[in-house]
Amino acid sequence: MIDIQNQKDTREIPLEKAGVRGLAYPVTVLDKRNKVQHTTAVADLFVSLPHNFKGTHMSRFIEIFHKYRSDLSLRKFLGMLSEIREKLDAERAFGTLTFPFFIEKEAPVSGQRGMMSYECTYEGEVRRGIPDESGFFVSVTVPVTTLCPCSRAISDRGAHNQRGRVKARLKYTSFFWIEDIIALVEDCASSGVYSVLKREDEKFVTERAYDRPVFVEDLVREVYLALAGRGFSRFSVEAENFESIHNHNAYAYAEYVAPEEG
Amino acid sequence: MIDIQNQKDTREIPLEKAGVRGLAYPVTVLDKRNKVQHTTAVADLFVSLPHNFKGTHMSRFIEIFHKYRSDLSLRKFLGMLSEIREKLDAERAFGTLTFPFFIEKEAPVSGQRGMMSYECTYEGEVRRGIPDESGFFVSVTVPVTTLCPCSRAISDRGAHNQRGRVKARLKYTSFFWIEDIIALVEDCASSGVYSVLKREDEKFVTERAYDRPVFVEDLVREVYLALAGRGFSRFSVEAENFESIHNHNAYAYAEYVAPEEG
Amino acid sequence: MIDIQNQKDTREIPLEKAGVRGLAYPVTVLDKRNKVQHTTAVADLFVSLPHNFKGTHMSRFIEIFHKYRSDLSLRKFLGMLSEIREKLDAERAFGTLTFPFFIEKEAPVSGQRGMMSYECTYEGEVRRGIPDESGFFVSVTVPVTTLCPCSRAISDRGAHNQRGRVKARLKYTSFFWIEDIIALVEDCASSGVYSVLKREDEKFVTERAYDRPVFVEDLVREVYLALAGRGFSRFSVEAENFESIHNHNAYAYAEYVAPEEG
Amino acid sequence: MIDIQNQKDTREIPLEKAGVRGLAYPVTVLDKRNKVQHTTAVADLFVSLPHNFKGTHMSRFIEIFHKYRSDLSLRKFLGMLSEIREKLDAERAFGTLTFPFFIEKEAPVSGQRGMMSYECTYEGEVRRGIPDESGFFVSVTVPVTTLCPCSRAISDRGAHNQRGRVKARLKYTSFFWIEDIIALVEDCASSGVYSVLKREDEKFVTERAYDRPVFVEDLVREVYLALAGRGFSRFSVEAENFESIHNHNAYAYAEYVAPEEG
Repeated sequence: MIDIQNQKDTREIPLEKAGVRGLAYPVTVLDKRNKVQHTTAVADLFVSLPHNFKGTHMSRFIEIFHKYRSDLSLRKFLGMLSEIREKLDAERAFGTLTFPFFIEKEAPVSGQRGMMSYECTYEGEVRRGIPDESGFFVSVTVPVTTLCPCSRAISDRGAHNQRGRVKARLKYTSFFWIEDIIALVEDCASSGVYSVLKREDEKFVTERAYDRPVFVEDLVREVYLALAGRGFSRFSVEAENFESIHNHNAYAYAEYVAPEEG
Repeated sequence: MIDIQNQKDTREIPLEKAGVRGLAYPVTVLDKRNKVQHTTAVADLFVSLPHNFKGTHMSRFIEIFHKYRSDLSLRKFLGMLSEIREKLDAERAFGTLTFPFFIEKEAPVSGQRGMMSYECTYEGEVRRGIPDESGFFVSVTVPVTTLCPCSRAISDRGAHNQRGRVKARLKYTSFFWIEDIIALVEDCASSGVYSVLKREDEKFVTERAYDRPVFVEDLVREVYLALAGRGFSRFSVEAENFESIHNHNAYAYAEYVAPEEG
Repeated sequence: MIDIQNQKDTREIPLEKAGVRGLAYPVTVLDKRNKVQHTTAVADLFVSLPHNFKGTHMSRFIEIFHKYRSDLSLRKFLGMLSEIREKLDAERAFGTLTFPFFIEKEAPVSGQRGMMSYECTYEGEVRRGIPDESGFFVSVTVPVTTLCPCSRAISDRGAHNQRGRVKARLKYTSFFWIEDIIALVEDCASSGVYSVLKREDEKFVTERAYDRPVFVEDLVREVYLALAGRGFSRFSVEAENFESIHNHNAYAYAEYVAPEEG
Repeated sequence: MIDIQNQKDTREIPLEKAGVRGLAYPVTVLDKRNKVQHTTAVADLFVSLPHNFKGTHMSRFIEIFHKYRSDLSLRKFLGMLSEIREKLDAERAFGTLTFPFFIEKEAPVSGQRGMMSYECTYEGEVRRGIPDESGFFVSVTVPVTTLCPCSRAISDRGAHNQRGRVKARLKYTSFFWIEDIIALVEDCASSGVYSVLKREDEKFVTERAYDRPVFVEDLVREVYLALAGRGFSRFSVEAENFESIHNHNAYAYAEYVAPEEG
């Protein structure tokens, strides 16, 4: 049967990316308390395509991904990308895996338990001939409460507050738990958010948020300081507030690169 | 050229709906201050299909809609549906038109102006032989601030609040302005939301919200009372709070049918 | 601590629904081949609220749901709703659970395996004092290929085809497997869709689709006949084609109620 | 009244971006046939924030944007950003404006007219002291039909095809019409898509697509060649196919930088 994708291409245009998007799969990831966690993911997988190839063989991405689905720890994810790169004879292979990560979280006073969901993304890249240069980033998005310092300072009573979300994207150089990054981010906000709050908990988080006002800019800077203090060599932090007094959002973003990485 | 859609169907299954979804168009609607307003809409248009027709001619929906796009007031919208019903020889034709409706709104103290956007939907239906039975509903979704009565009552300082949205769906029996429904809903919330707020405005809305706490259930009931007081014979109200202390939402819903409509 | 929600309400407006939306949880559901399947879900949970109650206690929904998360088969889902109804002293409790359901599917010629994801929804309702009147519906959304009969009939070569999706919503009266409904729907389309297709498979599905053209109206009717033939007493079917020649979609919808149900 | 945002910050962390997201506005843009076009947009507006400022004054973004809304041609958009940069005393100001752009398009044989909608984005950036270094990019997303060359070559009849979308992002150095970019992209696909197609048109586009098969990789390369031939000095092209035989998408991406720009 003719192999059209394999034909020579003469247009002399290399492609940065060719591959598949939106592949939905059940996956298993590491969990600090329970060792493994079952969740569901959407994967995007690409290779670079040299100018002289007409197309890539997209079915091979899925064949290879399918083999690895039951264990997508960091090392296995990069191994999966390496196998894709080799089978498709590409310079580079890269991909992302986005999934909800669940933690059973206790309410701060009553101790009532409920599940919280945090969106996470793995991003990996492998290159031909430079195994040590492979890159791996983990992103974690954490919903939080933010209370406005300006509103509190100028108002005789109350202060506007809202749900916000913080996204931290971290270069992976040594092992860390997603759970620890989530706790670090929640500590920088006016308050973390919870699935179950009894009245005594609601009083606690209301007062805590009132006592710890942060602008979206403050929140980015506090998370930045905490991550830099944990030794990450390259990361970015963004925060977005779903303002309770507006129908648009407030946003801030910062990046860090350690001197030796720059 | 053969007309497959027009062939007889022998499966004896009438279809409630056959038509098109997701038709994006620029449209013009009525505006209380400026007479007309230019906006953009997404239309879904359907007819009922008798059991003996294999298919409907979907291009005709767009041909007819295209003629009416420059004036989609209520009367014209129903006229458009009547023409679709006749051309496609159907018992019923119905459709929806969803669009952002814009109002230039003043901040409560400084008077600073900014545009607010409110999602609106028209829903119309016409039936063969019963012109007076045509139905028309208008839905308006209004973003608001809600401040939690429980949090305020039990906390020594502050109270959690958040952006919420209220959707009112109203049977159209006599003329009303969308602008008036929006103002009515905002009056029932802890506060309306704004595009531009200077510091004196932020103080005002923070304190107003603190002084007017509402549960999502209260908000639905207040809007219900206000709409019933305005003479609407059939409507529903829903409210959803994007809780600042949770990652899920609080929700309430009620319906009203006047005795003479039931 | 004061219980504001529990206060008397004098506005005399009962609420159809009060509750929580967007609760994200890992869950376990039944699987024909593997007995159980781990997946992730979003739950919406409501009770009706009598006119004389100011508010509902939303934390209780999550406390109860949390206990049931590890087994959300039909019986357990209704049991969970019953417990919510009792604890909140409501006339009715109802809820939905939406989740991706995964099946390892073989390519039609090569037998290559890949995971397919199908969106499913459980909807349940329980009422006070009438345990047998509880209602349970299962919805399954199946992506398919549809090839246009008109395009094929009038064109000298080729025929436009596209990805579509069919949603079947079924009243649950006796046990069935989600896997069987998916297979039934795929059999009615021009072709099912797959995660992995080698070239011999691609040839097979291309030719099969060309040999089995269906309008969106045909697809709804074929699924309707197949479901009625399987004894379901109440169901609806909708189909939507992401037309390859348009930027809008074609849509059809039908409902069935058995005479004894009507 | 105290100005908290204006306080000194001692954390020594400059922010890449601080600003507002999701501002919905009616806007007016240039139109080749009708001179101006009314549409609706969502704006994101940012400034860089030096390490020594605690926060930015977000209300000023909206005050300034509000003044410019009635004419958001390129020059005015950069002028708006310059005014934001100056008022907020920032090194850089940047923003995006995303809107549907409408064209009344004729069917290829019947000449029947319908509106097509294309998502467009303006991206601008201005820097202190280097007016000539301001950057402006325009992105246009064009829905198209793609027919698979492999499926056609290996199948005895038919070929799978689907709706795809192509996004071209172009550095603006001299004037061009969005309409011309759309036409250029549609010429590279198996076929453009239409709102209204009568049967004679459907035959035409079916056969044209069958005669012009393109992989997603081919589509990117053809658009790349056409844009390079039009003298653009910096651009990227991406294409995504909503595969009719899969539930995931095929994707390709390429970038071009002219030698003098690199």
